[in-house]
Amino acid sequence: MTEHIPPDFRVPGFLAAGLAAGIKKTEAKDLALLYSEVPAAAAGVFTTNRVKAAPVLLSRERVKSGKGRAILVNSGCANACTGKKGIFDGQRLSRRIASSLKIDPRDVLLASTGVIGKVLPLEVMEKSIPSLVASLSSEGLADAALAIMTTDTKPKAALVRDRVNGKEVTLAGIAKGAGMISPKMATLLVFVLTDAAISSGALRKALKEGVQGSFNRITVDGDTSTNDTLLILANGRAGNGRIQPATPGFRKFSVLLHDLLLALAKKTVADGEGVTKVVRILVERARTAPEAEKVARAVANSPLVKTAFFGEDANWGRILCAAGYSGAPIDAEKVDIFFDDVQVVRKGQGAGPEKEEPATAVMKKGEYTVRLDLHRGAKRAFLFTTDFSFDYVKINASYRS
Amino acid sequence: MTEHIPPDFRVPGFLAAGLAAGIKKTEAKDLALLYSEVPAAAAGVFTTNRVKAAPVLLSRERVKSGKGRAILVNSGCANACTGKKGIFDGQRLSRRIASSLKIDPRDVLLASTGVIGKVLPLEVMEKSIPSLVASLSSEGLADAALAIMTTDTKPKAALVRDRVNGKEVTLAGIAKGAGMISPKMATLLVFVLTDAAISSGALRKALKEGVQGSFNRITVDGDTSTNDTLLILANGRAGNGRIQPATPGFRKFSVLLHDLLLALAKKTVADGEGVTKVVRILVERARTAPEAEKVARAVANSPLVKTAFFGEDANWGRILCAAGYSGAPIDAEKVDIFFDDVQVVRKGQGAGPEKEEPATAVMKKGEYTVRLDLHRGAKRAFLFTTDFSFDYVKINASYRS
Repeated sequence: MTEHIPPDFRVPGFLAAGLAAGIKKTEAKDLALLYSEVPAAAAGVFTTNRVKAAPVLLSRERVKSGKGRAILVNSGCANACTGKKGIFDGQRLSRRIASSLKIDPRDVLLASTGVIGKVLPLEVMEKSIPSLVASLSSEGLADAALAIMTTDTKPKAALVRDRVNGKEVTLAGIAKGAGMISPKMATLLVFVLTDAAISSGALRKALKEGVQGSFNRITVDGDTSTNDTLLILANGRAGNGRIQPATPGFRKFSVLLHDLLLALAKKTVADGEGVTKVVRILVERARTAPEAEKVARAVANSPLVKTAFFGEDANWGRILCAAGYSGAPIDAEKVDIFFDDVQVVRKGQGAGPEKEEPATAVMKKGEYTVRLDLHRGAKRAFLFTTDFSFDYVKINASYRS
Repeated sequence: MTEHIPPDFRVPGFLAAGLAAGIKKTEAKDLALLYSEVPAAAAGVFTTNRVKAAPVLLSRERVKSGKGRAILVNSGCANACTGKKGIFDGQRLSRRIASSLKIDPRDVLLASTGVIGKVLPLEVMEKSIPSLVASLSSEGLADAALAIMTTDTKPKAALVRDRVNGKEVTLAGIAKGAGMISPKMATLLVFVLTDAAISSGALRKALKEGVQGSFNRITVDGDTSTNDTLLILANGRAGNGRIQPATPGFRKFSVLLHDLLLALAKKTVADGEGVTKVVRILVERARTAPEAEKVARAVANSPLVKTAFFGEDANWGRILCAAGYSGAPIDAEKVDIFFDDVQVVRKGQGAGPEKEEPATAVMKKGEYTVRLDLHRGAKRAFLFTTDFSFDYVKINASYRS
């Protein structure tokens, strides 16, 4: 699994750990801790689902302070739909972590992933906290990336380093995805650590913008989970001039953060459940941005389109059909569709049987773009989607058992 | 296949035929004709997709007259996204049928189903018209039911007979479904013949209401096709007092029509692509009807819920999660969920591990109800949905090839 972890995967002033606490039935790692040696600015984005897991409720509240020191994450149990007990359990774990690390419990952020409706195995988790804290190390991020996985087949990790306001800063991120992936905000668990010095207002703003162009642009199955959480800690260890909103340093930092998030988002979609293809749906020349978005979503989420991607079948009719029922007022007889550079639809009709072969060749690739030109205006939208395979059904029909 | 056809499947004054014209690559039947020996009232409902197939555009226009005599239907080719040529082809076929039957071409209604983007094999079809017309018979509806099938595994046919305004009237219907089934209007091809005497206004009204409670209540994959068409012809041969809107006779007729459509809708969803389960999603005590509808749709269309149905996994967390992202302002901590009579969620939390076994027993049945009680008001909505199986992916990954 180490081939998926960037070399020198660490951030000055941060320690991390990941181990197998026994939350999962398997012996896989299932508990991770991220820790900043000094107080850090913090920001987060959370699921828009009306059903929010206990750790989401707790972290959302705590991150409002704009600061944080530690993030405790478990896989194997979502602590969602667990009522007051779920909240108490989260608070209790926070206190344990805080006392071990000698920090304020309100600076502990939480995230969970796994089956909905099960309560946390508290005893098992508490027993592991001493060894979790003891194993904290500057090299521990790779273990943490492993410990947050559920049906992911590989850990998702990304790193960027560049100069901002006169100093080299590092941003490292880990993510877990696979199912319940939909472009309605933080569609999974993502944790970013940076040594940049940045105001919490600027951090919040950069995060919000970065998510918009990355994790809000991917879809695997259109489901939005109860536990989606994206947290960032910035501890200032780089010693750069403190980044403030609307400055050149802010713009530079924002680009770095966006690049990091986009890299993680693409890894996430490529490792979606049963995924064999990653397809970018690009809608161009819509009259309005929401119109472009509607078309992109309908195409990206259509089971018939996604099974055709899996079958490598250049069945453009299903794509045009999905655009037609998207709710956007498209003019069917104006639409052009391209598979990469191969035009398959011209003005709402097949562009000719000679396109079949090159179009099929594009679909045999692991990654390609389906572009719809609506010829209605100047707005655009894109989404990364995936195919729907036998394995998607297999994984999800048997996930819990 | 005859076991799926009701006994004495015919309607006075109507002839029908179905044969293999060679539109499909296989030797299956692919061309059907329905014909009223006398002028008939006609009404129709059509796809809401912005991309409408040529036969939809033609039939929608013609049925506005409130009358019709013949319906020509082919499978194997949707005649969708075929531009002006699609329209010309439809008009040409109408003229051929009309001259063979010695009726007005404007009284010929058309419907097509099959792959989008292919033009009709006109020569092949025209060559079959003489034998199609020659084989018209009062017994021919069963053949027509076979000829309109695509990935359906069985023909869908239903019949009701009852007294209306002093006479026995017959309603017979045939349908084809399987994929691109979504509750946004006439989600497939459905043809109903009746010998009732009814004004075209009353017929239109009864049809609209009947569809609302039947075909608008089923979903297989959330896709709305380009070709959805539901047509009804009423030729008055029963000799009943002519049915007018807002009379007892109208209400009686409406109930019969609704029963017929619901029977066809249920057969359609049960024969959806790769379906092994038919699940009724019932949402109760919503504050508003649209709110109930939103929740029902989100649950019914969630791939994660549908794969859990396939896996017979009582994973209620996915159901609650889908309700949460439906867009309806539900209160998660008030929701109760039942699998038939087994309560699995109480106030947003698991109702106890002892419910696991009886809940799983319910899910092993071929048909059951998932009921969500929102505890917010007095409105309700239901939908029939299906599981998502390996075969759904298999059928749709390879459908066109």
